[in-house]
Amino acid sequence: MTDALRSIDLAVIPGDGIGPEVTAEAVKVLRAVAGDDVRLTLTEYTLGAQHWLETGETLSDETLGKLRGHDAILFGAVGAAPGDTRIPSGLIEREFLLKLRFSLDHFVNLRPSRLYPGVPSPLAAPGVIDFIVVREGTEGPYTGNGGTLRGGTPHEVATEVSLNTAFGVERAVRDAFTRASARRRKLTLVHKHNVLVYAGHLWKRTVEAVAAEFPDVSHDYLHVDAAMIFLVTDPSRFDVIVTDNLFGDIVTDLAAAVSGGIGLAASANLNMERTAPSMFEPVHGSAPDIAGRQIADPTAAILSAALLLRHLGLDEHAARIEQAVEEDISSRTTDRRTAAVGDAIAAAVS
Amino acid sequence: MTDALRSIDLAVIPGDGIGPEVTAEAVKVLRAVAGDDVRLTLTEYTLGAQHWLETGETLSDETLGKLRGHDAILFGAVGAAPGDTRIPSGLIEREFLLKLRFSLDHFVNLRPSRLYPGVPSPLAAPGVIDFIVVREGTEGPYTGNGGTLRGGTPHEVATEVSLNTAFGVERAVRDAFTRASARRRKLTLVHKHNVLVYAGHLWKRTVEAVAAEFPDVSHDYLHVDAAMIFLVTDPSRFDVIVTDNLFGDIVTDLAAAVSGGIGLAASANLNMERTAPSMFEPVHGSAPDIAGRQIADPTAAILSAALLLRHLGLDEHAARIEQAVEEDISSRTTDRRTAAVGDAIAAAVS
Ligand SMILES: CC(C)[C@H](C(=O)O)[C@@H](O)C(=O)O
Ligand SMILES: CC(C)[C@H](C(=O)O)[C@@H](O)C(=O)O
Repeated sequence: MTDALRSIDLAVIPGDGIGPEVTAEAVKVLRAVAGDDVRLTLTEYTLGAQHWLETGETLSDETLGKLRGHDAILFGAVGAAPGDTRIPSGLIEREFLLKLRFSLDHFVNLRPSRLYPGVPSPLAAPGVIDFIVVREGTEGPYTGNGGTLRGGTPHEVATEVSLNTAFGVERAVRDAFTRASARRRKLTLVHKHNVLVYAGHLWKRTVEAVAAEFPDVSHDYLHVDAAMIFLVTDPSRFDVIVTDNLFGDIVTDLAAAVSGGIGLAASANLNMERTAPSMFEPVHGSAPDIAGRQIADPTAAILSAALLLRHLGLDEHAARIEQAVEEDISSRTTDRRTAAVGDAIAAAVS
Repeated sequence: MTDALRSIDLAVIPGDGIGPEVTAEAVKVLRAVAGDDVRLTLTEYTLGAQHWLETGETLSDETLGKLRGHDAILFGAVGAAPGDTRIPSGLIEREFLLKLRFSLDHFVNLRPSRLYPGVPSPLAAPGVIDFIVVREGTEGPYTGNGGTLRGGTPHEVATEVSLNTAFGVERAVRDAFTRASARRRKLTLVHKHNVLVYAGHLWKRTVEAVAAEFPDVSHDYLHVDAAMIFLVTDPSRFDVIVTDNLFGDIVTDLAAAVSGGIGLAASANLNMERTAPSMFEPVHGSAPDIAGRQIADPTAAILSAALLLRHLGLDEHAARIEQAVEEDISSRTTDRRTAAVGDAIAAAVS
């Protein structure tokens, strides 16, 4: 299927550290694949730790309003160097990144894991790794609920409240089943319902209920601790994993690690109701230690751009990028500069 | 150092599934290593899923009172077959296992990970794996706090509350530093303080404060997601990990997997204030699918018995078991029956 002439209007947030380098390559590839049949409009936004240091803005209502006007957001990475004490720890993560995910209702945090042929895995016998994680993105332990009583005293009590709603769990679970029915038709719920009884049972009941709508999809359940074991002993068993925000954070970093590293791991923060733009970002962070040296692998950012195109209905263009990445990866012989990887993939998709 | 004549009075809870089989071997080895210089008194308690089905008891106050009278508890595993719908999911885990850990104030859940020579790891290049995890055992998301509002309706809200106290965090952190100073002097805090701000900062501040008492121990910090990556790409970097109850659950299963599997992973639930007996158990569960067939590996149970002896001050006896296990593992050629493994190790320690 070829796509008719389309215009897409993207916000681009390069961010900090290696963010600008890898985003530049993703943009390069997007332009190349767009060619003459997709009219691409790009608006760059300067945001992140450095921007906060200079202006005090993490993400203003005004900027958020502007971002809402785009079809999608391509995002690099944000975050200060670990040693930089001028930036309160976690501030940018919460007031920029999580604020975006929550404000734009990115309830599906989609993270595919695929071990491309020729890519080394830390596993001795990885087998075929090809699964996706649907991580709920707008609730769970990520809502910022909690507090501190008697802070700094020997009687301090700190709480964290995980909030889970039928509404929130169900839309994530339904999305996961929908994706499973278009894949190998196997869904695995990962949670810890033997301990986290209230949230766990909501998730379990919801999976049972939605499963009835997808008789072609089989489903099973793993406690998060057992999932750790399977991810390193038998990752081929997974097709679609659905899980909450925090377990999803943990599972997807391990999934990325076993399938070739976070240099290759793409992600999509999806508002599947399309009431606001979705956001596409590599799983990796800003890696300030290697920033500006043209040694970061832009593949994760480039694959995130492919997820962006697919979300906007440009499946054929997305597939071209994925195909080009696959060929590029399996033919890599030496470490190449960031721009050289982008050049090669851009050339292949033009 | 040889130990003087000692009497130790143990409660033994074989439990369900493979629990009785592996516990029998641990007892066999304990008897052998005790020989003439340790007087061993063993009292067996029938508890677990099967016992609940027969009697309705998970863990009565009366039983708990009796258990308190022993020097330590050797525990196998509990849990019904996954398909057994007669047992409410998680009941035995919470009302027996977690109840024991909480009632007996097992605030240090100690889980060593060591890749023995000759043991295959799922990692292609595991390197030297030899670290311990100090998992806090009495608070965090495990306290059973939380609830359900409008359960079963489309407006359901389920909460889980993680409770963390300066008192609870500090005693776990101090224990971890103490162990680190007797090992390779490196402590890693694993948490997610960029998102779980309140609990995360309590943990971070506590580590900084206690670190001042241990100038010989260096310490660093990893978000739990980053820890996942290092556990499969560079597990040698770890010496002592300290973390909360839920992250500890997750980290230790992955740690067990990369260091040869949960068939080898021992654990200790320690009350380091010695106000109640500590409990020693393999990390694995009751594995009903392989129960009664003499194919379960009793090594984790046997190593847990070694941790028990060490906790009771019988270091030399503990070391003998660990030495025998190491030799047994590296000389294994075929899969042996459960009892044969126990026989071999018992013979070696006598
Ligand atoms: C930076 C952090 C807040 C974020 C998360 O925890 O979601 C990151 O780890 C991720 O997975 O995208
Ligand atoms: C059975 C379960 C409650 C338990 C836990 O979560 O602590 C187990 O997974 C463990 O690690 O000992």
